[in-house]
Amino acid sequence: MGAFLACDWGTTNLRAWVLGESGSVQAHKEFPQLGVSRLQPGEAAKRFRDEIRPALRAEGLPALLCGMIGSTLGWTVVPYDRCPTSLEDLAGALHAVLPDVHIVPGVSCPGVTGASDVMRGEETQILGWVSMDPARAAGRHLICHPGTHAKWALVEDGRLVRFATAMTGELFAVLRKHSVLRTDDEPGDEAAFAEGVEAAGEGDALSSRLFSARGRIVADGKPAGTAADYLSGLLIGAEVAGTPALLGVEAGAPVQLIGDLALCRWYRQALSLRGVSSEVCDGEEAALAGLAALHGRTA
Amino acid sequence: MGAFLACDWGTTNLRAWVLGESGSVQAHKEFPQLGVSRLQPGEAAKRFRDEIRPALRAEGLPALLCGMIGSTLGWTVVPYDRCPTSLEDLAGALHAVLPDVHIVPGVSCPGVTGASDVMRGEETQILGWVSMDPARAAGRHLICHPGTHAKWALVEDGRLVRFATAMTGELFAVLRKHSVLRTDDEPGDEAAFAEGVEAAGEGDALSSRLFSARGRIVADGKPAGTAADYLSGLLIGAEVAGTPALLGVEAGAPVQLIGDLALCRWYRQALSLRGVSSEVCDGEEAALAGLAALHGRTA
Repeated sequence: MGAFLACDWGTTNLRAWVLGESGSVQAHKEFPQLGVSRLQPGEAAKRFRDEIRPALRAEGLPALLCGMIGSTLGWTVVPYDRCPTSLEDLAGALHAVLPDVHIVPGVSCPGVTGASDVMRGEETQILGWVSMDPARAAGRHLICHPGTHAKWALVEDGRLVRFATAMTGELFAVLRKHSVLRTDDEPGDEAAFAEGVEAAGEGDALSSRLFSARGRIVADGKPAGTAADYLSGLLIGAEVAGTPALLGVEAGAPVQLIGDLALCRWYRQALSLRGVSSEVCDGEEAALAGLAALHGRTA
Repeated sequence: MGAFLACDWGTTNLRAWVLGESGSVQAHKEFPQLGVSRLQPGEAAKRFRDEIRPALRAEGLPALLCGMIGSTLGWTVVPYDRCPTSLEDLAGALHAVLPDVHIVPGVSCPGVTGASDVMRGEETQILGWVSMDPARAAGRHLICHPGTHAKWALVEDGRLVRFATAMTGELFAVLRKHSVLRTDDEPGDEAAFAEGVEAAGEGDALSSRLFSARGRIVADGKPAGTAADYLSGLLIGAEVAGTPALLGVEAGAPVQLIGDLALCRWYRQALSLRGVSSEVCDGEEAALAGLAALHGRTA
C-alpha cells in the first residue's frame, strides 16, 4: 500500500492524516474551521487543494475522504451504498472527484420505522473497527456511535447489515437551549446522570418522562445545577434501553462504543447502570483504520 | 350561588366570564396580552383591578381564578394541593389574595419517574368536566389534556388520583424550530400525520424513531411540506401509545380529551388510528364548569 492522505471530513471538523507506506502516521492535522457546515457552496475542492494538501505536505499523494464531504453540503453528492455492505463493497464504490481523490460513499438502509435511514462517515469508523482485529470479522456485533445523531449498527460476519439513528444528542441540545428544561450548567454530576438513567425506564413514553427533569427541581428541591446531567441520563438511558430491540437485538447484549471518548464514557456508564457490558474505541482510531483498510483494498 | 367573576388565567391567555346567579354567562372576554408570561413581576393585582374587572363590569363581584396565575410568574405562589384531590378538596384549599379574590391551587403528585409532577389550571378543567354530568362522578376515567405540556390524568370516583405530564407539544415546537427536522410548513396533511402515528410504534425508543422524519424526505423523496405533519403524528402517536401504561391503565382504554378543540381533534385521530375510542370536550367549557362548581361549593 502506497502512502496516502486520509481525511475524516465531517459536519463540524476535518481530521487529516498522511499514512506512510508502512501504515504509520507521518502527519496529522485538524481543521475545525473546514467542517462541511462552514464551507461555501463549491469551495471544497479549492480549500482541499490550497489549504489541506499544503498543511500536510501531501501535494502529490492520492487522497481518500469520508464523511459529510460526500453530501449536498460537501464537495459533491455521492450516492449512498445500501446495506448490507462491507469494506470490499465500499472500496468498490468509492467516488472519484479528481483522478487521485476519492470519497467513501455513505450508507443507507430501511430504517426502523420504514423510512430510509442514512449515515455518512460512521460506516468508515464501524467497518474500520472491524478491520482492527481479525477476530471481529466473524460473528455479530452491536455497535453504538454516540453523537448529535447517534448511530446504532449491527455488524454480522464483517458486514454492516442494519442501523438506526437516534437523535439523542440533538434532543439534548435543543431541550437544554430552547425548552422549559433549559439550563446553562455543564454536565458532570454522575449521581444526577444515574437518576436520569433510572427515570428513563425501558425507553418507553419518553415525552411523558421528560417533564420530570423540571418537577425534580421546582417541586422536589433538587439543585438546579443537576438538571443537565439528569436530562442527559434520561435521554441516553432511554436510547440505550430502547434501541437494541429496534434492531432485533435481545436486551442485555454487549455494546461496542465507537466515537468521542468523553461521550462514549457517559454511554458506557448508562449501559453499566443497566447491567450491560460495553467497550470503547476512539472514533479517530477507527476512522483512520477504516480509511487505511479501504485504501489498501484499492491499491 | 351568587354571581361571580371566573378567570382561567394561563401562561399565554386569560379567559374571563361573569356568571350570573342562574349560572348563565353574562359577560365573556379574552385577554391574550395578559397571559402570565407577559406580566411584569407584581403587577397582576393592579391589572386585574384596572383592566379585567372594568372590562367585564365586574367591579363588585367575588372572583375565582385558576391557572398559572397561582405560580411564581403570577399573582402569588399558591401551594399545590396533593393527589388524590376532588372539587371539595380544592374548594377547601382556595387561596385568598384579596378578601373577595381567590385562586384555585394547582395539584402535585408523585410522577411516573419518581420526581413530583405538577399542574396548574388543568385540575379545574378536569374536575370541571366531571361536574358537567352526574354519571361521571363514579367509575374510572382516563383523561388527556393536550398542549405544550399535555396532562394525562386518572379520575376515580370523582377524584383526581394521579397524572403524568407529556412534553409533546414543546418537543414538537423545539424540534420544528431548532433541529435538523425544522420546517416552516403548517400541519394539515392527514396522510402524513397517520404515517407518523404508525412510525411511533408503541411509543418505545422515540429518539431512534425521530430521525425518520428526515430520512423520508432526504432519502425517500417524500414532499418536504409533509414533514411537520409526520413529526406531529410521530410525537402524538408515541404519547398516546406509551402514556396510559405509565398510569397503570391498560392499552386500549377509552380516552376523554379536554382542551383546545383543534388539537383535541389530532389526538382523537391518533387514538382512532390505534383503535382507541375517545370523546372531546372543549377546555373552555370545562374550565367554566370547574370554576362554577368550585364557587358553588364555597357559597
